[in-house]
Amino acid sequence: MTMSRLWIENGIFVTMDDEALVVRGHMVVENDLIVYIGADAPDASLTEGAQIINGKGQLFMPGLINTHGHAAMSLLRGYSDDETLQVWLQQYMWPMEGKYQDEDTRTGTSLAVLEMLKSGTTTFVDMYDRMDIVAQVVEQSGIRAWLTRGAIGLCSEEEQRAKLEEAIAFAKNWNGKGEGRIRTMMSPHAPYTCPPAFIEQFVQAAHDLDLPMHTHMSETLAEVEQNVRDYGSRPVEHLLKLGFFSRPSFVAHGVHLNDEEIAILKAHQVSISHNPASNLKLASGVARVPDLLRAGVTVSLGTDSAASNNNLNLFNEIRLAALIHKGVSGDPTAIPALTALRMGTVYGARTLWQEHEIGRLKSGMKADFIALDIEQAHFYPQTDFISHLVYAASGRDVRHVWVNGRQVVENRQCLFIDEERVRHEAQVRFEALGQR
Amino acid sequence: MTMSRLWIENGIFVTMDDEALVVRGHMVVENDLIVYIGADAPDASLTEGAQIINGKGQLFMPGLINTHGHAAMSLLRGYSDDETLQVWLQQYMWPMEGKYQDEDTRTGTSLAVLEMLKSGTTTFVDMYDRMDIVAQVVEQSGIRAWLTRGAIGLCSEEEQRAKLEEAIAFAKNWNGKGEGRIRTMMSPHAPYTCPPAFIEQFVQAAHDLDLPMHTHMSETLAEVEQNVRDYGSRPVEHLLKLGFFSRPSFVAHGVHLNDEEIAILKAHQVSISHNPASNLKLASGVARVPDLLRAGVTVSLGTDSAASNNNLNLFNEIRLAALIHKGVSGDPTAIPALTALRMGTVYGARTLWQEHEIGRLKSGMKADFIALDIEQAHFYPQTDFISHLVYAASGRDVRHVWVNGRQVVENRQCLFIDEERVRHEAQVRFEALGQR
Repeated sequence: MTMSRLWIENGIFVTMDDEALVVRGHMVVENDLIVYIGADAPDASLTEGAQIINGKGQLFMPGLINTHGHAAMSLLRGYSDDETLQVWLQQYMWPMEGKYQDEDTRTGTSLAVLEMLKSGTTTFVDMYDRMDIVAQVVEQSGIRAWLTRGAIGLCSEEEQRAKLEEAIAFAKNWNGKGEGRIRTMMSPHAPYTCPPAFIEQFVQAAHDLDLPMHTHMSETLAEVEQNVRDYGSRPVEHLLKLGFFSRPSFVAHGVHLNDEEIAILKAHQVSISHNPASNLKLASGVARVPDLLRAGVTVSLGTDSAASNNNLNLFNEIRLAALIHKGVSGDPTAIPALTALRMGTVYGARTLWQEHEIGRLKSGMKADFIALDIEQAHFYPQTDFISHLVYAASGRDVRHVWVNGRQVVENRQCLFIDEERVRHEAQVRFEALGQR
Repeated sequence: MTMSRLWIENGIFVTMDDEALVVRGHMVVENDLIVYIGADAPDASLTEGAQIINGKGQLFMPGLINTHGHAAMSLLRGYSDDETLQVWLQQYMWPMEGKYQDEDTRTGTSLAVLEMLKSGTTTFVDMYDRMDIVAQVVEQSGIRAWLTRGAIGLCSEEEQRAKLEEAIAFAKNWNGKGEGRIRTMMSPHAPYTCPPAFIEQFVQAAHDLDLPMHTHMSETLAEVEQNVRDYGSRPVEHLLKLGFFSRPSFVAHGVHLNDEEIAILKAHQVSISHNPASNLKLASGVARVPDLLRAGVTVSLGTDSAASNNNLNLFNEIRLAALIHKGVSGDPTAIPALTALRMGTVYGARTLWQEHEIGRLKSGMKADFIALDIEQAHFYPQTDFISHLVYAASGRDVRHVWVNGRQVVENRQCLFIDEERVRHEAQVRFEALGQR
């Protein structure tokens, strides 16, 4: 392998590293790693043969980390909104998803990856089916991802077994692929869609394969009440009994949690993927994020799918996380800007057990980073870049994106996805779905 | 005056007009007015000599209407965040605002107008001081605005008189200027910052000049409680007694209202400018927007200032309005996408008594409209443009803007404001403010 070097000079770097949060100066990338960041010019030995980028007018920061979603559902963006969860699922989502073919998954996932990369997300979590196709899109596009076959267990034992085997085969085949960008997990869909024995089979498989676990948990109040009715305990205790938290794990949503449940999550180092837009849009409620953070639980951010958001722009989640908990708690100091930005970067990395690889710009970390145009009215005056990134920026300010040291977006164009073709196919395939 | 004509063909028009919400076809503008919109090609007599624009790949819609703000405070964007209201105001905002000079107001206002125009706002409301300077910026930039000298009455009677006279002189001098784009109002700042007699003087002046009124009202719970302590009534009853609602009027915020107050607002046709981001960020609470709309009160959207938001991108307020009331009420059908979009357009026009001039694309209306690039991943598939505009779009999707028939933004560049100079001056003047 030939060595590639990139030297960004004259840049503003929001590193998300506590020791030097904002650096005006230089960054050097060698292959997939950051090897230097600092105010002073790097040693000549580091920059020999490097491609040089003048960073003037741009702000560089770690790529964002989206810890929950269903990429292929982007094909259903705007197909149904403003309905109750049951109507939305049963009358709109499930019938359409039931008609999906491989190429629908490929197109929906490509559309999602396009949107995520162009709005600054460099790592995402995906839980869906036909995951081989999702992994192919990830491999080709250059993005980093944690992928998992989400299995609903409301079916015969034979079907359950087939789903488990599919999940195991996928997790084995793809873990570490794409130059290490792809990681896999085991995911029963949710306590309310999976019988206890089915969840236990996934836990066992995760132990056997030494993989982490992910699931939906406590998204709605109705689901918590049903869990108590069906199993005599709330979802956290239920999953604890089933051994779920004996694996490294994180859960999506966690909207309805009591203090005891928060303590259990903390004790087992279970992180929460907070999905504020989806929780608001589906009227699930507002998660107790300030309480979770105070208790020491790691909280990161997810978009959920574009069918319940309806975008995959993590800057929107960062801003929502900073705003909504202030308004709902009555405390304007709740979730300060820096905390919200950490939720989209450092805490995302911690959720995925990669805090020493991604989420910060620092020597030795993977070179996953983005460049925003800051020569725009909404970034002026340049008082506080953390504030501007949280309260004023948009994913559309992102101009360039690098993942694992490789540039994947240049001047707002994805380099490894044919955007025009994907948009065209999204339209054709969505219309065809409606006809089938 | 020579006649100017513009013919947009092959466009998608989200008209916000109930009779034909989405039109694929043509629009013709003659001078300041829309003279045709429809699926069929316009009559040749309408298009003779017209400039022709091919609308392919763009979505045209009415310019957004921002019904509350303080433009010049954009110079303090990011200067203080995540503080309690009193600390934010007393330790940060007021000391800096006290040092403002004319050129600070000019620069802050120019920065704000730049941001608003480029993100699709064509009409804004501004309440501040040094309003002659604000009006000059409006006149030059081409935007439409309702301007008013907001007067705080916590001062000597002599100072009160000077402020009232300044407000009257400004309102008289500027009403109807800028080819009719500038309209004026009378504005005591708020019930808690103005003694009753001072408010009555403004009401009298508004009667004498036949002008409408605007104020801040019931933004925080503390302010409502203080009103009861000081005057024996809640703010709505208080303003009613002082004759405020005998004038056409609208109020900003209206977060803390009881049913009786909502009925009074409805009976007097008082509209509310809902400022969701500012209310969340300052932890003021969540306004009862679904209840207000059900009661028949007109609710429009405002950004408030960039010091408490921290952007002036009304698409963000539209999205927040659609999301937050669902999550807080537990009803996913609260504030459907179309209602949120109306709040940013038609209801804004109604708030400003201009429903038959702006806020819709329709023959006979003023040509205030914007063009968004929709050949982007987040607008696909093209299932429902109303949904996409509310849940997926951003102000950064706006490419062109016309106000009063004149193009003021072309390919994301303001034609009548020197953006680079304004950004530079914003930085220089902000830094100088800190030194004074």
